[in-house]
Amino acid sequence: MTTKWNAKNSDPVARGLMIGFPPPSELRVGSEGEISGSSFPQTRWAFSHQRELKATVNVRRGSAAASALPRALRDDIDGVAFTTMEGEQTTWAQSLEAMFTDGIVILHRGAIVYETYRGALAPELPHIAFSMTKSFVGLLAATLAHEGKIDPAAPVAHYIPELEGSAFADASVRQVMDMTVGVKYSENYTDAEAEVRTYGIAAGYGKPPQGYDGPRSIVDFLCTLKKQGEHGQAFAYKTCNTEVLAWIVQRVTGTPMAQLISERIWQKIGAEEDGNIIVDPAGMAACGGGMSIALRDLSRFGEMMRKGGRFNGQQIVPEAVVADIAKGAEPAYFAKAGYQTMPGWSYRAQWWVSHNDLGAYTARGIHGQVCWIAPKAELVVARFASHPVAANGNSVLDKVSLPAYAAVAAHLMRG
Amino acid sequence: MTTKWNAKNSDPVARGLMIGFPPPSELRVGSEGEISGSSFPQTRWAFSHQRELKATVNVRRGSAAASALPRALRDDIDGVAFTTMEGEQTTWAQSLEAMFTDGIVILHRGAIVYETYRGALAPELPHIAFSMTKSFVGLLAATLAHEGKIDPAAPVAHYIPELEGSAFADASVRQVMDMTVGVKYSENYTDAEAEVRTYGIAAGYGKPPQGYDGPRSIVDFLCTLKKQGEHGQAFAYKTCNTEVLAWIVQRVTGTPMAQLISERIWQKIGAEEDGNIIVDPAGMAACGGGMSIALRDLSRFGEMMRKGGRFNGQQIVPEAVVADIAKGAEPAYFAKAGYQTMPGWSYRAQWWVSHNDLGAYTARGIHGQVCWIAPKAELVVARFASHPVAANGNSVLDKVSLPAYAAVAAHLMRG
Repeated sequence: MTTKWNAKNSDPVARGLMIGFPPPSELRVGSEGEISGSSFPQTRWAFSHQRELKATVNVRRGSAAASALPRALRDDIDGVAFTTMEGEQTTWAQSLEAMFTDGIVILHRGAIVYETYRGALAPELPHIAFSMTKSFVGLLAATLAHEGKIDPAAPVAHYIPELEGSAFADASVRQVMDMTVGVKYSENYTDAEAEVRTYGIAAGYGKPPQGYDGPRSIVDFLCTLKKQGEHGQAFAYKTCNTEVLAWIVQRVTGTPMAQLISERIWQKIGAEEDGNIIVDPAGMAACGGGMSIALRDLSRFGEMMRKGGRFNGQQIVPEAVVADIAKGAEPAYFAKAGYQTMPGWSYRAQWWVSHNDLGAYTARGIHGQVCWIAPKAELVVARFASHPVAANGNSVLDKVSLPAYAAVAAHLMRG
Repeated sequence: MTTKWNAKNSDPVARGLMIGFPPPSELRVGSEGEISGSSFPQTRWAFSHQRELKATVNVRRGSAAASALPRALRDDIDGVAFTTMEGEQTTWAQSLEAMFTDGIVILHRGAIVYETYRGALAPELPHIAFSMTKSFVGLLAATLAHEGKIDPAAPVAHYIPELEGSAFADASVRQVMDMTVGVKYSENYTDAEAEVRTYGIAAGYGKPPQGYDGPRSIVDFLCTLKKQGEHGQAFAYKTCNTEVLAWIVQRVTGTPMAQLISERIWQKIGAEEDGNIIVDPAGMAACGGGMSIALRDLSRFGEMMRKGGRFNGQQIVPEAVVADIAKGAEPAYFAKAGYQTMPGWSYRAQWWVSHNDLGAYTARGIHGQVCWIAPKAELVVARFASHPVAANGNSVLDKVSLPAYAAVAAHLMRG
């Protein structure tokens, strides 16, 4: 491929992806082969249309009206200047292009001060959240622990006997929540042998290749994972932890994850659109990264976190649970993972915690999905993107985005 | 198979279909093989969970609150007695079991007088509407004709040049709407060679069998269909007509069907749940039978028709369009199709019209889906079912259901 892609020449609307009745065959996005929605630049359409490519379960918002989201738009944010981690001078507006942004909502003191939709995204379309899904699962698990329904100190096998014999059997629920489990599992998307590839097939993100005879469901996949190293020594980002945690949450509550998120979060924040989660062949939600939600609803969720679990006139998540996440975990464990762009950070209950002056913590997903919550700046940045590079940490994404958020925070704090 | 299935022993909740984390393998419902959601009794779960098995596009209800649907429940309907077309004495309550009913809402004078959910259905779950989808397409096409955007007298090829050379080229849009097109296409579900089987694969309802090399999209399929007999001579129920009509509607408006239904109907009636439509590999909605909607919303749609296109405080569809459908078409054309259970009926703009004393007309779908509108009884019956038999006409379904509706109408008209 000789094309040098950028946000403009990959724009799915300008290119006519999936436009027309039918779309021309060379401009279709499908579930496999050359037109796969998992490949860039088809991702630029597919990330806003997951349910049109895959089986999904509804995350229902309920039949009430959406909650109010005040607007106080500012026209001075586009011009905010900042320096990337690589020393480049740029502006907020320029960074949107560089990030292949599909949409951003910034809430300051609970009001929308900035909102943009690009590419195939629109306010009413759910966009895949990828690993931000994990932060929903972590929040629910932490809430259940707070309610005494899950014991974070208990071994995983106490809740899931099927995992006896796997890496997780003697890991504690807390270790699973904070991803300090010693398990042979590579999250390297560029390695064809990485376990994350098998996970992707088992969980229903992609179709099995010819001759595939591996696990065909998330839980079958989890049972195959073996111990490597010790638990509780270091943070290591491995999606399998989230799926174990989701399994525990669903087993303990007797309720599917999509229903839990609907009842405990989506209906309560007054979401304006239903979300959805990809389901695996056993009908279980892909909780490691399969949820799609609308952008304004992601910002509502972030605002609920910023306000200590309170939003839409009610306490939705216990304040203590939010405080525990915001406080973070042990940075020394995190440091061992070697993220150059995140010095001093930690990972707590499936959230990334900066320990910086703003008290910022974030939900993050590959290809540029972010919900950045900065309590001391009274700020939430909700972003969807379809950047060609998957990884966040140490990559082009963080090096531009983290300074961009800091600059906007400083700008808004000046008034 | 030796099991004699009935509503009770096939009940998906009692049997535990798709319950558990994960569901036991023998109680899973999937998209193919022995656990296919297209086979009874898995259909009893699958019909209420289509999107968890297939790629679907959203039919959005919007971010407002649902419209009010007053309740005036009556406890005397279950006991309404009637005689089936085969001379059997039964009651309304008994007929629900016999029909493998998943849910029924009866509206009388705009208020819910009866509501029940069974099997896997719940008020918030969309159930597949099957060919009731056609009546939505027909209503939109008739509305566009009323607005002058489609000329019913024009040949199909005027709007869809791709169909030049197919059976439809010289058929008029009106003939397509009323299904009097001469086309070689069998709708016989029990015949493995019937064209409806290929349609099902092309449209994304089912997976292609090994070695399948036929059309892979709805429009590709339509282009293969050849003329048989003359146009405009007789009614013949053939789903391909609806797909041609949907193609015309989408081409003329430049708008996908799911968006048209959302903007022109779903948002306006104040639906309480989003609907969804199965999409084919080209991303086009399966308009011949792929829509799923919630039961109360189906009843709102029926009530809008009963009130001449007016509901939720606004005129949603022109009164003249509804009147034209209710008036029906030429019963002599319909009679040639030989439906013994529907003497004197006709088919107009994708609706079945009884020409009876109640002015009743209906949307109908296989396996027992019905929206029965009886203006002179001020009555709407919305029903979802998962009866093992697909066909309506001449089958067990009509022979019980049509007398049942008539009996309830007579009962409620007495006061």
